[in-house]
Amino acid sequence: MTKKIFIDDNFLLESKAAQKLYHEYAEPMPIIDYHCHLPVSDIAADRIFENITHVWLGGDHYKWRAMRTCGINEKYITGDASNEEKFKAWATVVPKLIRNPLYHWTHLELKRIFGIDELLNPSSAMDIYRQCNELLPRSEFSVQSILKKFKMDALCTTNYPTETLEHHNKIRNSKCDIIVLPCFRPDVALDAHLPQKFNNFVDSLEDLTGHSINSFDDFMESLWQRHQFFHKSGCRISDYGIETAYSEDWTLGEVNSGLAQVRSGLPLEGEALSKFRSAVLYELLSMDYKQGWVQQLHLGAMRNNNTRMMSILGPDSGYDSIGDFEQGRSLVRLLDKLDQSGHLGKTIIYCLNPRDNELIASIIGCFQDGSVPGKIQMGSAWWFNDHKDGMTKQIEALSAIGVLSTFVGMLTDSRSFLSYPRHEYFRRILCNILGKGIESGELPEDYQLIGGIVQDICYFNAKNYFQLHEAHNSI
Amino acid sequence: MTKKIFIDDNFLLESKAAQKLYHEYAEPMPIIDYHCHLPVSDIAADRIFENITHVWLGGDHYKWRAMRTCGINEKYITGDASNEEKFKAWATVVPKLIRNPLYHWTHLELKRIFGIDELLNPSSAMDIYRQCNELLPRSEFSVQSILKKFKMDALCTTNYPTETLEHHNKIRNSKCDIIVLPCFRPDVALDAHLPQKFNNFVDSLEDLTGHSINSFDDFMESLWQRHQFFHKSGCRISDYGIETAYSEDWTLGEVNSGLAQVRSGLPLEGEALSKFRSAVLYELLSMDYKQGWVQQLHLGAMRNNNTRMMSILGPDSGYDSIGDFEQGRSLVRLLDKLDQSGHLGKTIIYCLNPRDNELIASIIGCFQDGSVPGKIQMGSAWWFNDHKDGMTKQIEALSAIGVLSTFVGMLTDSRSFLSYPRHEYFRRILCNILGKGIESGELPEDYQLIGGIVQDICYFNAKNYFQLHEAHNSI
Amino acid sequence: MTKKIFIDDNFLLESKAAQKLYHEYAEPMPIIDYHCHLPVSDIAADRIFENITHVWLGGDHYKWRAMRTCGINEKYITGDASNEEKFKAWATVVPKLIRNPLYHWTHLELKRIFGIDELLNPSSAMDIYRQCNELLPRSEFSVQSILKKFKMDALCTTNYPTETLEHHNKIRNSKCDIIVLPCFRPDVALDAHLPQKFNNFVDSLEDLTGHSINSFDDFMESLWQRHQFFHKSGCRISDYGIETAYSEDWTLGEVNSGLAQVRSGLPLEGEALSKFRSAVLYELLSMDYKQGWVQQLHLGAMRNNNTRMMSILGPDSGYDSIGDFEQGRSLVRLLDKLDQSGHLGKTIIYCLNPRDNELIASIIGCFQDGSVPGKIQMGSAWWFNDHKDGMTKQIEALSAIGVLSTFVGMLTDSRSFLSYPRHEYFRRILCNILGKGIESGELPEDYQLIGGIVQDICYFNAKNYFQLHEAHNSI
Repeated sequence: MTKKIFIDDNFLLESKAAQKLYHEYAEPMPIIDYHCHLPVSDIAADRIFENITHVWLGGDHYKWRAMRTCGINEKYITGDASNEEKFKAWATVVPKLIRNPLYHWTHLELKRIFGIDELLNPSSAMDIYRQCNELLPRSEFSVQSILKKFKMDALCTTNYPTETLEHHNKIRNSKCDIIVLPCFRPDVALDAHLPQKFNNFVDSLEDLTGHSINSFDDFMESLWQRHQFFHKSGCRISDYGIETAYSEDWTLGEVNSGLAQVRSGLPLEGEALSKFRSAVLYELLSMDYKQGWVQQLHLGAMRNNNTRMMSILGPDSGYDSIGDFEQGRSLVRLLDKLDQSGHLGKTIIYCLNPRDNELIASIIGCFQDGSVPGKIQMGSAWWFNDHKDGMTKQIEALSAIGVLSTFVGMLTDSRSFLSYPRHEYFRRILCNILGKGIESGELPEDYQLIGGIVQDICYFNAKNYFQLHEAHNSI
Repeated sequence: MTKKIFIDDNFLLESKAAQKLYHEYAEPMPIIDYHCHLPVSDIAADRIFENITHVWLGGDHYKWRAMRTCGINEKYITGDASNEEKFKAWATVVPKLIRNPLYHWTHLELKRIFGIDELLNPSSAMDIYRQCNELLPRSEFSVQSILKKFKMDALCTTNYPTETLEHHNKIRNSKCDIIVLPCFRPDVALDAHLPQKFNNFVDSLEDLTGHSINSFDDFMESLWQRHQFFHKSGCRISDYGIETAYSEDWTLGEVNSGLAQVRSGLPLEGEALSKFRSAVLYELLSMDYKQGWVQQLHLGAMRNNNTRMMSILGPDSGYDSIGDFEQGRSLVRLLDKLDQSGHLGKTIIYCLNPRDNELIASIIGCFQDGSVPGKIQMGSAWWFNDHKDGMTKQIEALSAIGVLSTFVGMLTDSRSFLSYPRHEYFRRILCNILGKGIESGELPEDYQLIGGIVQDICYFNAKNYFQLHEAHNSI
Repeated sequence: MTKKIFIDDNFLLESKAAQKLYHEYAEPMPIIDYHCHLPVSDIAADRIFENITHVWLGGDHYKWRAMRTCGINEKYITGDASNEEKFKAWATVVPKLIRNPLYHWTHLELKRIFGIDELLNPSSAMDIYRQCNELLPRSEFSVQSILKKFKMDALCTTNYPTETLEHHNKIRNSKCDIIVLPCFRPDVALDAHLPQKFNNFVDSLEDLTGHSINSFDDFMESLWQRHQFFHKSGCRISDYGIETAYSEDWTLGEVNSGLAQVRSGLPLEGEALSKFRSAVLYELLSMDYKQGWVQQLHLGAMRNNNTRMMSILGPDSGYDSIGDFEQGRSLVRLLDKLDQSGHLGKTIIYCLNPRDNELIASIIGCFQDGSVPGKIQMGSAWWFNDHKDGMTKQIEALSAIGVLSTFVGMLTDSRSFLSYPRHEYFRRILCNILGKGIESGELPEDYQLIGGIVQDICYFNAKNYFQLHEAHNSI
């Protein structure tokens, strides 16, 4: 008896119904990756990567954490070891990652992108390293080619308010037929506890807009100018990475004082910080509403937990975690304030702690107003939840408490061009859940209905919700 | 090959063992619906409904939320659209509710009550609308007939302390052989942050009891009179809808001042409110103990989250959510205070946030005293958890940390006479879980044992715990 | 057709792959029980038990809680009923414990230790009582014989800092070839809110070390002496039972004042208590690091919830529960402080509330430094989570967010010598999960790989992580 092939056509599809849903409905759908951290300059340049270690291990803090956990010295992770040494180190770790999503992602990426079926481990490492490095320089492995291979329809990069968006412009004016739009991420405008970072940002704003910022209103006006600039560049999505939904009351006097203090170099703290953030967030979300954008709230991360490594490697190097903050009251207060003033637009709420799935799924229902299907969305399983168990829990909570069929579906949130099989991963899991329901009789055996919902979640809901094609055409 | 019928005899019963447990043990059991929000006047009048829209969509905020989420204009939900228009709007939404319990409830209700097997969707809508409306005026669709159809043995409505209970009285003196008793829900006595509402209530108490209320003791005495009046009317259950278990220490001076303040029209806030509520709650629970009642604590809802819609539609219109409050310490303090003073009676603790299932399951174990099986109960999956996943989690936590076989089982918590298939729904899920255990060898294949436990949870535990028959006979 | 035998060879093993993993890989492994509460004097004396009631019901608060929940009078639990009466009372409860782990543990223990296949219930009770009591006096049921029967390789008891460890010494010098080492549990050093208890402890320290304790430094020095004494006795593990990770900043002045206050008989409270605990905990964890020990943090229990029963029965009698404390920020602060000062050693973090599994799994990843595989561990499913659902959730979170293959696996945490089948229970559940993955194609069908991981988790990881053999040989 021969061994099962590890990832076959029906990977994760445990029933005939699931297989039918995936192969006939989900698989043919293009991808709208409405939130990722890909470097837009690489897309514009249609970059060719020379070495699998760069593109695969260079910035992937998921892999770094796994390597540290398995006892690999930092030299072979972010240190000065050679590409080959780092790849080998990674290969020793992979077999230990059984049941971690990295195990599936790794082999899906090898298979889908490089056509490699072998399991990565110390004995296959050098072979696979050579194969990948032979393939990478070919034109069909350029950034745009990879994106096309995955049927990329539109993607949104994540950008600071002061960015020039020249690369987006370049892509639009090139032969590339993938829609690549920016996403406005003004977190730094809330960082009044970090005067240097904050003031650098405000100084840049002054330079870019040509107006000095002497008051909170000036500050908002300059952000509004950038917001409009992004809008003209086709941006239709904003993004906020915040521990909780800042929603304190404030007065103009208080936030003017706050701004003056941080501009003088003194960090804001406690209530003053909280009020300042609440004000900035509220005003930014109101701008999003005015322009008809979708706003994303990424709640619940606890960041830069390891001071020693933060000083060595900086942020986003694998030292963040889930937080267990109280989220409910402040989130309701924020949404209610916006709703009361008529400024509540389309909103996606991601929460990093999966214990809060049901909380979020029930809160969004309080602010649906019948204007747009799924106006307030529960975000897809994010970051530490980006695996079968996490996606299943998110789908379960959204299904039982909200309306799954209005869900705008998956994104990559990724920094790597090789990570697009994650859409396939999500789609297989989604189809498996729905297929199981058909087989068990919990869902009607109506493929037109269920298959249609699959296609909505995989593509059409995002298309209608974000309106990225319309944005692209309006530029 | 013909399609599977959507809801067949073995709906949700995935094994032979589950089917045997359900059909031979669970299904024949009568229902004790010990907590619901049905209007007792409709039972007393044996009301006939004219239109399916009234009885199905008129007050069901679960459906309203789903419709808003799917982009339906409020006109077709709570607005001035016609019954037919509202029904059609609902029918367009139903197919989108795949995996939401509303999808199952809708089709179970159509099947069990109206004998309709068709799926509700835009093309079947008018046909189903007409069928239901043809059937509803018939005598076998009167309120009491529907209750009898579902083998209703006893049910408890939810009543304010100032109600006259005349309809309960009327039913008792009629030919109706269903036991219909009141449940005492004095939440308003804790609403000292809302002077108008609170004072209206206190004024009514003064009118009803003929004594003026000038002190906290007076207040408690008047509540005790109403408590006794309810007891004489066969009431044996109280109910408290509270965010957390108020359990601060207080002095008589403090709560007298609190009462005086709110009576003067000034709302209580902060610590004063917390102490006042703690005192009222403690005294009410002590009354419950004195009379041998079962008290229900419904913890963890965050209510009226949408200020704009609250001002338009009022409470209970679909704008509440799960809360993420800290529950443990205050709940332990409350139960411990009552236990120390010898005033801790039978108690059911419901918590709306499913992340707290294990917390509650472990806390109840600290206050079981061997006097009554399952004296302190973990409440059944409530409100936003009233679906397969929610029930499964509640059963799982109670099983693993407490004792499932002492569980008093399901209630409807419903405002609709059509919602009784929810007991069937619960029973099927329960039998499916236990049947799966038998098939996998995790439970012994002893149907007398497991079937007996099924019957206990479906009926006998509630019968013994609430003693509603005894209450009814004592009137 | 004959009934299935309740616990057969493939109990809990639902696939061929699971059966193969368990029987070929897991089952042959010895046990390292690195955390338990067994009385070491009984091991040293190789005690023979006279009565099944003593050894089975004498100190098992899991069973006590279940009996109270089922309505058994305290007389038959911890009261003056006879051994036979207590056993009978327990036998009436057992059939009601369907789906509770006690149901499985009870029958596993009867089968594995006494060879009894019958289900325990009122009709089998006296028969089983007699059989057990006939067997217990035989030499193959002595404490050491039972431990050998379960292939015990090494076990660690839990000991106060002031213990003499004479029994450990005696075992080492006996013919017993099981490694029995102490574990250092200095919780009392943090109990500055309980002056009597705390001062008794400090007095004992003074007596043992021969130095008076007049300052915080003296206090730490005396603890360090005991720490060294434990180290010389082969101790390599410490244990802290704390609600949350105390990690406030403090000054030497503050903690000196704190010590003086509690020594004068006044309890510490609020901030003073918090600072004192933070200081003691930090210093103790630094000692652990200096000696290369593994430290265990048992977070999240809410203890002695029932004041009335605490005054009658004392602690550990079934009146503790899960708590819902905020854990994240303080835990990160503690680990970060230790890491910054270079004092962060191998650490196992257990959290009693399963809703925090993902939180813990993500936090540990921020402090892995590549020095040791799985340096910071997520503890196995603890106490109220010690069942199939709880273990499954722990394995799921650790797998998806951390690295399962580095897990040091199960412990008993038990007070009973009969509880060793819990390792079998864990192993079957682990193999069932992994086997299911192989069957569904989520894991590669590579038994050498997956079987090797099973053996690592069951034995080798603990062997390498705790280094108990090396400790034993160094004495």
